[in-house]
Amino acid sequence: MADWRVSPGLALDEMVAERLARGESIVHLGVDEVRLPAFDPLVEHLVAGADRTSHGPVAGSRALREAAAGYFTRRRLPTGADQIVAGPGSKPLLLALNLVVPGDVIVPKPAWDTYAPQAGLAGKKVFRVPIPPQAGGVPDPVALRDTIIAARALGRDPRIVVLTLPDNPTGTLAAPDLVREICLIAEQEDLLIVSDEIHRDLLHDPGTRMAGPAEFAPSRTVVTTGLSKNLALGGWRVGVARFPDGAWGRRIRDGVIAFAGEVWSTVAGPVQRAAEYAFAEPPEIRRRLADSARLHGSVARAVHRIMVGAGAVCRPPVGAFHLYPDFSPVGDKLAARGVTDSASLSRQLLDEHGIVVLAGHLLGDDEDALRFKASMSTLYGDTAELRQLALDSPDPAGLPHVSDLLTRIGESFEKLCG
Amino acid sequence: MADWRVSPGLALDEMVAERLARGESIVHLGVDEVRLPAFDPLVEHLVAGADRTSHGPVAGSRALREAAAGYFTRRRLPTGADQIVAGPGSKPLLLALNLVVPGDVIVPKPAWDTYAPQAGLAGKKVFRVPIPPQAGGVPDPVALRDTIIAARALGRDPRIVVLTLPDNPTGTLAAPDLVREICLIAEQEDLLIVSDEIHRDLLHDPGTRMAGPAEFAPSRTVVTTGLSKNLALGGWRVGVARFPDGAWGRRIRDGVIAFAGEVWSTVAGPVQRAAEYAFAEPPEIRRRLADSARLHGSVARAVHRIMVGAGAVCRPPVGAFHLYPDFSPVGDKLAARGVTDSASLSRQLLDEHGIVVLAGHLLGDDEDALRFKASMSTLYGDTAELRQLALDSPDPAGLPHVSDLLTRIGESFEKLCG
Repeated sequence: MADWRVSPGLALDEMVAERLARGESIVHLGVDEVRLPAFDPLVEHLVAGADRTSHGPVAGSRALREAAAGYFTRRRLPTGADQIVAGPGSKPLLLALNLVVPGDVIVPKPAWDTYAPQAGLAGKKVFRVPIPPQAGGVPDPVALRDTIIAARALGRDPRIVVLTLPDNPTGTLAAPDLVREICLIAEQEDLLIVSDEIHRDLLHDPGTRMAGPAEFAPSRTVVTTGLSKNLALGGWRVGVARFPDGAWGRRIRDGVIAFAGEVWSTVAGPVQRAAEYAFAEPPEIRRRLADSARLHGSVARAVHRIMVGAGAVCRPPVGAFHLYPDFSPVGDKLAARGVTDSASLSRQLLDEHGIVVLAGHLLGDDEDALRFKASMSTLYGDTAELRQLALDSPDPAGLPHVSDLLTRIGESFEKLCG
Repeated sequence: MADWRVSPGLALDEMVAERLARGESIVHLGVDEVRLPAFDPLVEHLVAGADRTSHGPVAGSRALREAAAGYFTRRRLPTGADQIVAGPGSKPLLLALNLVVPGDVIVPKPAWDTYAPQAGLAGKKVFRVPIPPQAGGVPDPVALRDTIIAARALGRDPRIVVLTLPDNPTGTLAAPDLVREICLIAEQEDLLIVSDEIHRDLLHDPGTRMAGPAEFAPSRTVVTTGLSKNLALGGWRVGVARFPDGAWGRRIRDGVIAFAGEVWSTVAGPVQRAAEYAFAEPPEIRRRLADSARLHGSVARAVHRIMVGAGAVCRPPVGAFHLYPDFSPVGDKLAARGVTDSASLSRQLLDEHGIVVLAGHLLGDDEDALRFKASMSTLYGDTAELRQLALDSPDPAGLPHVSDLLTRIGESFEKLCG
């Protein structure tokens, strides 16, 4: 039997649930899920779709594909409904791409912890390329070229590069010039670009300019997104992929649809109804997206100050709800406490301070690096009321229930690095 | 790129949709989906779960797993919640089993058209073993032994046998003695048994005795089911797998959970809420199941009479909503009309009579066999009102809107075989 291991993020969630059940006080910065109260208009549309007990097209209802096409078109990516395939989350769509498109996969280092196991499921080898100093979510261009050459010398065939814009785990966004440079390499080396843009609507500053690879390399970029992060609907399970126009794009799309037909059949009907509404982005949805982005940004900036204050270097967060600090500047102090690598850093944070983070090596980073991913979403409150308060606040990090947690985190890191 | 083809059933649906759009009159007997009005109490529970926007355990909520455990326990399979994993339909659970459990796969011939492509996705070879004369859904025991020997002589390693109880496509049920015999072979040859029991609640006669392989070979049988067929919820996407108790069962279960975590994460939360209610089987759900079974049986028996009347041999239907007639007794008459094999039979039915069936060779049967699958579910009415009428009727086949279609089918087959 193959060695099937539960993904580290999910294993972490279960460990935390056990500790909480034992009455321990935990600050859980290892959650990739956004936990916010259900948004009433979304619930209303789900309810309106409750009678969708028959499954329609595998790729999703025509209305859903048209709404998603509109979503992309409004983001400078003119899109027809036939370029869209929906799935129960973007995760299964990413797996389908791995199975349909041949060749090995290049992912940034670090990267979201699902890319590599999915590539492995499809029998692909994964090449990890360090991210550049400016931002995560993309491989460093020079290292990317070197990796492709080295991989081919080994007889491998890298054909897919995965980008994450904005990025999980670093909470940063690769600038348009950097994205363009990656696209140029993809053109020269004949790579398919998979652009995971599930956090696109969570850029903290509405003025931040984002240009995805589909703008520079439209014929070779598949974009994925979903409603799990921007609208905090992880439990409803819906994502979409946008395929390139043209024969090659249609061929990949048809492959993904064929795979979907053998695996998940279609997205749950009532959820499709809600997604039709959400992707159309009426004003109240746009407001909700803006509120969510403000909340994530406010808390991420506060935690960033804490990490930097404790001695870490850390790219400033501009999107999503994550940070990826590097504690090597205070490596000597940490070593004195027995913290010498990624695993011991996360273990000491848990054992001594009750703080859960996702260790960097679980995201493909070096085992001896003093890095981890911290996610913000559990800092917004323990109850729906507190979370709503945080969502509505012009200064979420200043709310008492949030700032109490920030204080606790700050004190812990001062002790750890002091 | 691998040759990804859309599954034949789905391709058929799309072809039919196009013809209907052109105004053609079609009798669609190629639909595997049950189309019945949404059942109000199920809708109410889905709505009550609309606020489940966070995803809980990958395997499904504790309440859902407990309800499903109760469902199996009431069917002579004592089951703990920890033996259950839920998925968005039983289909992805079946794929996960293929990926987690090594070795090649044996499926009945004919069988549901998803088993073989899923095995192929997992890199397995598929061995098809003819069904015995008594019933489909299981391989003929003698042929099963022969196939295992022959496969091993070829250097292959058959390790999984898939059973379908009651069966799609034949609408029959293997008797307990036959199931026991297959289980004995599985014990002797060390095969995992995957028992697809998604039609279990649709035995037409409530007195029919069913014994599944988990009763005879509890340590090596995984049972799958779902709510798509029995409660006509194909569009909501929920199924469950029941794993054997013990270390080996836990290991397979953990593998399936790990796969699920990388692919579909969890079942849509509101759907889980409805499934918690459905698997608990309160009286109104049991009545609904009984009504559905009566409807399927009434119409399947009527179509069976038509097929036999036209000269086919056909196992009498006892469960599900399918028939699998064999027109070889009237092969000469068909040959005179240019019908000489599975493909030409289904084509002539469509072109000359507007009747859509799923040709037997698409289910793994011999290409030159004059066999096809006919599904009943589109015969119940074009509107929710007519379908409800059929569901409520003590004699659904006698309703005017149903009997009109039966008359049309009867006349077509008389012409085809006359």
